[in-house]
Amino acid sequence: MNAIDRPEAAVRVELGERGYDILIGSGLLAAAGAAIRERLGAVRLAVVTDENVAAIHLPALLLALRAADLDAITIVLPPGEATKSLEHLEAVVDQVLEARLERGDAVVALGGGVIGDLAGFAAAIVRRGMSFVQIPTSLLAQVDSSVGGKTGINSRLGKNLIGAFHQPALVLADTAVLDTLPAREFAAGYAEVAKYGLLGDADFFAWLEENRAAVFAGGAARTRAIAVSCRAKAAIVAADEREQGERALLNLGHTFGHALEAAAGFDARRLVHGEAVAIGMALAHRFSAGLGLAPGADAERVERHLRAAGLPTAISDVPGSAIEADELMRHIGQDKKVRQGRLTFILTRGIGRAFVAGDVSPGEVRSFLEAELAR
Amino acid sequence: MNAIDRPEAAVRVELGERGYDILIGSGLLAAAGAAIRERLGAVRLAVVTDENVAAIHLPALLLALRAADLDAITIVLPPGEATKSLEHLEAVVDQVLEARLERGDAVVALGGGVIGDLAGFAAAIVRRGMSFVQIPTSLLAQVDSSVGGKTGINSRLGKNLIGAFHQPALVLADTAVLDTLPAREFAAGYAEVAKYGLLGDADFFAWLEENRAAVFAGGAARTRAIAVSCRAKAAIVAADEREQGERALLNLGHTFGHALEAAAGFDARRLVHGEAVAIGMALAHRFSAGLGLAPGADAERVERHLRAAGLPTAISDVPGSAIEADELMRHIGQDKKVRQGRLTFILTRGIGRAFVAGDVSPGEVRSFLEAELAR
Repeated sequence: MNAIDRPEAAVRVELGERGYDILIGSGLLAAAGAAIRERLGAVRLAVVTDENVAAIHLPALLLALRAADLDAITIVLPPGEATKSLEHLEAVVDQVLEARLERGDAVVALGGGVIGDLAGFAAAIVRRGMSFVQIPTSLLAQVDSSVGGKTGINSRLGKNLIGAFHQPALVLADTAVLDTLPAREFAAGYAEVAKYGLLGDADFFAWLEENRAAVFAGGAARTRAIAVSCRAKAAIVAADEREQGERALLNLGHTFGHALEAAAGFDARRLVHGEAVAIGMALAHRFSAGLGLAPGADAERVERHLRAAGLPTAISDVPGSAIEADELMRHIGQDKKVRQGRLTFILTRGIGRAFVAGDVSPGEVRSFLEAELAR
Repeated sequence: MNAIDRPEAAVRVELGERGYDILIGSGLLAAAGAAIRERLGAVRLAVVTDENVAAIHLPALLLALRAADLDAITIVLPPGEATKSLEHLEAVVDQVLEARLERGDAVVALGGGVIGDLAGFAAAIVRRGMSFVQIPTSLLAQVDSSVGGKTGINSRLGKNLIGAFHQPALVLADTAVLDTLPAREFAAGYAEVAKYGLLGDADFFAWLEENRAAVFAGGAARTRAIAVSCRAKAAIVAADEREQGERALLNLGHTFGHALEAAAGFDARRLVHGEAVAIGMALAHRFSAGLGLAPGADAERVERHLRAAGLPTAISDVPGSAIEADELMRHIGQDKKVRQGRLTFILTRGIGRAFVAGDVSPGEVRSFLEAELAR
């Protein structure tokens, strides 16, 4: 049987000549070689992964590539956010060049968001752009970073401040690999799934409220949740590839979230990205409710659902030393969603009704954060 | 008087929403502030330049920016090809981020190709893409790197192996700044001017044969030569922004040229880029003539014109230790214009009739180089 012919779901990201498919289903890893060869031909590959993922999934991928007669070098990096650095980028770029991969050859990211962002950025800049294939192994990466072409690394001045837009040629989201994720990491990814309901699809959010346990368990509900999420993101990205307008909606919860991650020192023991987004979304709903834009009941519903999924929803949920409003404001000011001194936030008129507010006053944000910290 | 309203020539690079103008004329540096403000608004700027250019032209630029009430930080780098490194890229990126420039703000490159490539790449990757303004101060940069959006740095494995396509928002080519160039550098830039005649415009090449001295002297002939060159490159780039096909014509002389530069250790005392391209174009014509594709008389005419302009036309013209065929072949193999083991060369059927040959055999190239070295 050829799994490629029967992914459980397929989402097309419509970007003209940069358009690509996201195949979603259980067991797709074993069909990776055939899928890559079908789309890119007999290319040479550089598989970028981290030590944790390599131990579990690299042998299966290499077997699948060999079965399709595709040559690959492997580049195995340390796990963790610290890998998204200029030093590791240079190491990947050098190894790809040393292997003499050419423009039509491909970098394959096998891993979560860190590996996808780093490997994608390497693919974007080696020879001014090589082909790129994503095999996301975390729920977060499957529903978020695998769609939209954002790649990059961190700077000592902030997260994701250096990068490029570079679309993959193919994304393979194998839902079975998620069975190996720690529960905390699955929950963190689920925050981004809930986000697609909150930002523009109240029916999907209601479906998640009913089916959360099934999504966590795996099977058809999980595939559906991932496909709906990818389709939602794909539609937004297709309308706004370079993040000039509507795409900013995807940042629901992210301006607060990034500031929280920075304030927590990007220490995954304290806070991982999805958890930061969960708190950020809860804050965005409460902030909107406080401004009289959204019903308070919706803010409460959001908080209840995220808590049920095992996610944090308040700044005080972050363990370790207390986070101050000053520090959050400083990070918000360095965030790249700043234009001419006014802050851009994603606010909401209620569940499924998020919108881009381009002129939020820093003073209002500070007052809100101080009230949250006093809660 | 407002020089902006009256550049001597203007070339539009048609790339849809990424389209931009190249303004060409004497004295445009003094009008840079007004031109930038007119197109980008009241943005903040990071002016990237090198020590040599800063000493001559930076005060005039800063005065022009202040006159238009535009804030700028300045980043002054060491001159020379060695500046196109990851280390200097990181320094520029860090300073731009430290100054808190935002996506809509702009990096301004004031300098030659090295500064344009490095600053443009920094603009491409800071916050996944900032605005970019080019003020090229060498003839080479005015006719070549200012059009087409190629940016990048060198790797220890080769030249320009790391980079991005990132179009500027505006290019200001002040023909008067070229008066301060050393004669050798002006001649090197002239090689790229001649290239536009050779690759597709026999009439322009004939005009250059008549008017070479006037172009070197300055005035209207120089402005015309620059404008015709920019227009030729702009037309090719507009048809093929990502270098998938026709754009490769611009590499006439460059595959040989890059290999020569690498073999000469990127030592500007031995060979600068334009000189390498001059030898490369002479080689491409002789190689084409040897293959029976082009008249031998055309190859001789090319050699005569380049020599009259003070440019080298043979491998043996490179001073220092002898360059070997083996070494050139090794560098040609690492060049990014390689696909699946066959070499891509720009060959010609005669002056103004260059074409892309995608399947040149390495053996034929080696035989030709050995014959050239025995000449």
